[in-house]
Amino acid sequence: MQLSLHPQMAFKRIKRSENYSEWYNNLVKDADLAEHSAVKGCMVIKPYGYAIWEKMQAILDKKFKDTGHSNAYFPLFVPKSLFEKEEKNAEGFAKECAVVTHYRLTNDPNKPGSLMADPNSKLEEELVVRPTSEAIIWNTYKNWINSYRDLPLLINQWANVVRWEMRTRLFLRTAEFLWQEGHTAHATKEEAWEETNQMLAVYADFAETYMAVPVIQGTKTPSERFAGADETLCIEGMMQDGKALQMGTSHFLGQNFAKAFDVKFQSKEGKLEHVWATSWGVSTRLMGALIMSHSDDEGLVLPPALAPIHLVIVPIYKSEDDLAAIHEKIKPLMDELKKQDITVKFDDRDSYKPGYKFAEWELKGVPLRLAIGPRDLANDTAEMARRDTKEKETVAMSELATVIPGKLDEIQKALFDKAAKMRDDNSYHVKTWDEFVDVVENKNGFAWAHWDGTDETEEKIKKMTKATIRCIPLDQTKETGTCVLTGKPSAGRVLFAKAY
Amino acid sequence: MQLSLHPQMAFKRIKRSENYSEWYNNLVKDADLAEHSAVKGCMVIKPYGYAIWEKMQAILDKKFKDTGHSNAYFPLFVPKSLFEKEEKNAEGFAKECAVVTHYRLTNDPNKPGSLMADPNSKLEEELVVRPTSEAIIWNTYKNWINSYRDLPLLINQWANVVRWEMRTRLFLRTAEFLWQEGHTAHATKEEAWEETNQMLAVYADFAETYMAVPVIQGTKTPSERFAGADETLCIEGMMQDGKALQMGTSHFLGQNFAKAFDVKFQSKEGKLEHVWATSWGVSTRLMGALIMSHSDDEGLVLPPALAPIHLVIVPIYKSEDDLAAIHEKIKPLMDELKKQDITVKFDDRDSYKPGYKFAEWELKGVPLRLAIGPRDLANDTAEMARRDTKEKETVAMSELATVIPGKLDEIQKALFDKAAKMRDDNSYHVKTWDEFVDVVENKNGFAWAHWDGTDETEEKIKKMTKATIRCIPLDQTKETGTCVLTGKPSAGRVLFAKAY
Repeated sequence: MQLSLHPQMAFKRIKRSENYSEWYNNLVKDADLAEHSAVKGCMVIKPYGYAIWEKMQAILDKKFKDTGHSNAYFPLFVPKSLFEKEEKNAEGFAKECAVVTHYRLTNDPNKPGSLMADPNSKLEEELVVRPTSEAIIWNTYKNWINSYRDLPLLINQWANVVRWEMRTRLFLRTAEFLWQEGHTAHATKEEAWEETNQMLAVYADFAETYMAVPVIQGTKTPSERFAGADETLCIEGMMQDGKALQMGTSHFLGQNFAKAFDVKFQSKEGKLEHVWATSWGVSTRLMGALIMSHSDDEGLVLPPALAPIHLVIVPIYKSEDDLAAIHEKIKPLMDELKKQDITVKFDDRDSYKPGYKFAEWELKGVPLRLAIGPRDLANDTAEMARRDTKEKETVAMSELATVIPGKLDEIQKALFDKAAKMRDDNSYHVKTWDEFVDVVENKNGFAWAHWDGTDETEEKIKKMTKATIRCIPLDQTKETGTCVLTGKPSAGRVLFAKAY
Repeated sequence: MQLSLHPQMAFKRIKRSENYSEWYNNLVKDADLAEHSAVKGCMVIKPYGYAIWEKMQAILDKKFKDTGHSNAYFPLFVPKSLFEKEEKNAEGFAKECAVVTHYRLTNDPNKPGSLMADPNSKLEEELVVRPTSEAIIWNTYKNWINSYRDLPLLINQWANVVRWEMRTRLFLRTAEFLWQEGHTAHATKEEAWEETNQMLAVYADFAETYMAVPVIQGTKTPSERFAGADETLCIEGMMQDGKALQMGTSHFLGQNFAKAFDVKFQSKEGKLEHVWATSWGVSTRLMGALIMSHSDDEGLVLPPALAPIHLVIVPIYKSEDDLAAIHEKIKPLMDELKKQDITVKFDDRDSYKPGYKFAEWELKGVPLRLAIGPRDLANDTAEMARRDTKEKETVAMSELATVIPGKLDEIQKALFDKAAKMRDDNSYHVKTWDEFVDVVENKNGFAWAHWDGTDETEEKIKKMTKATIRCIPLDQTKETGTCVLTGKPSAGRVLFAKAY
């Protein structure tokens, strides 16, 4: 353990090896990413955390638009009678719905100075706070879709949703969270299926290229499907504790919602047919994945592609004149980097010492740090430190403008490679039940195992080990084998792991 | 009246002069901006409308960041006990609060297949769906602010809020709406007051420069203040029917919330003091202002700065070869305009005739249209039409890349000038009560009149004429006069008008 220099963590920092879960909770708070609020289960996303989310949003939003989608906005509330229409969907979410029953507060006659829901404002029909928007959206699409000319309808929404959770964790599982939900309508099954796959590929590319988190793309088993979907595709990442985290899902909804909401279109051939649908989403949960994939015992480690600050410059000085000289020396570099869209923070706060600043920016995961003191000034150099490897090197001032962007690219790649190696090192092809148990319970890894394809076996394994089938990989090798639990025949391996 | 060519408006379009309110309602729907939803009072913002809102958001967000603010996110729900803490604020919003009382649905034993709020999931404390976020935010700031070093705290949030309204109108007044709310904390009264004014200036600049809507900046009278504020500043625009629309507000909250939530900081001098606060917001109501300020009987008229599409190109062709030739001819121009960040739509839909397309893009307010037919192809020209003035001119193909951006700037300016002239032509300095009544009831204009400064007179005038004091202008000329109703002394004119 080490005693932190940061005022907000004037306590001993927990290491990952000591208690991974507590390490995560502390890190989210200490790095100013998010905190619990006065509302049970709801979080406050703090400016630094929100800045990362905004970067994620911007990249994803562009990808959605590049694939032909437009944004729109649908109501927060879903009337109960609409919510009920797609039965499986309703059944799946009923247990976690916040319900609005009144539309006014009034003075509480029994408690002076206190308010209460006005009994006279009881709603005739309760409103559900959206846990997901299929119901309200498909009820709207009904009026937008008449002919094949209206298809495909490719819409995305950035919104807050509420799913009441008893046990919550910042970013990973909160009652309210932010997300995007795509909802598309198509004339044919093939096109809807193509869309489902396309959006999964968009998510996978985002996770790997920007978050630097390698993911397995696969299909959920029936028991893990989205309520109301015919198929759910997902991307799964491995966190540093070996657990899997579902990072995004893309659902093929078949004609379930079209039938529940009676959405038909006239085909080119003049026939009246039900529309085919998809929905797909990622949420602020991605923040949890990002944090857990790369960070270390000193704090956050951010991939440059999502870092709100790429480079922090810490001047080491005694006098105001020294500071001015350093600033003057470094100004042209800062201007040059700005042109290259590299975000630089010159930390000239007078109230903190360099050591404190180093620790703070490490905690906040800034990919690169420059320290410039009197000797550097004399030698025309700066000391550059990488956040991920902690490597330091002295670089000539004249080279920094080219070295820095290259180094950022290098860090981005290194983080992905490290995460991929960690995952591969902790992934096992298991054959026997003993091996399986050893992997999921002792080695804390991914177990690639044969499964007989039944709900019963899946459920049994879950009860026995807490490991679940994360997915049937899209690139599954056809390979005959025998189920790791029952010994029954299997046509290929699936991914088992404990999961968040 | 004219019979529209658009399928969605296969009815007679209402003119502004016939029924302004109906003209507005139809336009919002016909131009695909928004529509009513299945949830009473809540709207669906359709992709085309949302694209305009996204442009507004991007510009405003940059302005907020340029003035030092960061975005964050606070919970949708406010526990009742927190909501009550700032009494005036609670009192002001209590009558329009949606209240969450349960967190689960269960099968209704009396109605098979139907769900009901589970009586066993009744919340111990009701949750208010935020009508505004001062309460939850100041309860959070309490933990973020200890020292003068933590100040100023400059935070903005983009969010949905709910204020239950009985009579709703798309964009102008809806139960749920989208907005941004800035919430800042300062060490001194002066700094908070400066912030209040700065953000009003940001809103005024946005309204005039981007929306092309001239605004009056002023202070609200005590009766029109935000509940919980010491002062409310506002910007007010004039719509084409002569009514005023409040387009944005910036509140000086004094120490009211700091006291209600016990938020103190240690000053440089070591004293414990309450923090000073501001809050400021604009909402999707701006969409209403934008639509009403410029549009005409043929549809929407959008200022280029906020138009999702700047230029539509309609090819006039008989054969596929003609179309290909037009496309080839126009491709270099499209590439060149793209480089200049001008958004071009090449409307090559085969299923619609040019006349239909012209009407549709007029309805949607695209600032410029090019039509290119065989003769243009032969002459190396195109016919350019302005949406705002309907002027057409033939332009040489080689000149379009320079003519178009200039023309867009010209339109932006022309819209502002037209709106300013309209407002000035309908603004009157009135002296007598008869003149006053004539302006607000017959001329439907802005009445600049002397007022004795009392709530009573303000209230009386409102009851007699429905006109309210929109604001006391920031640039009020000191000019002694007598109150238009009571004859009592007054030190300057205030702005009276009927308002949305």
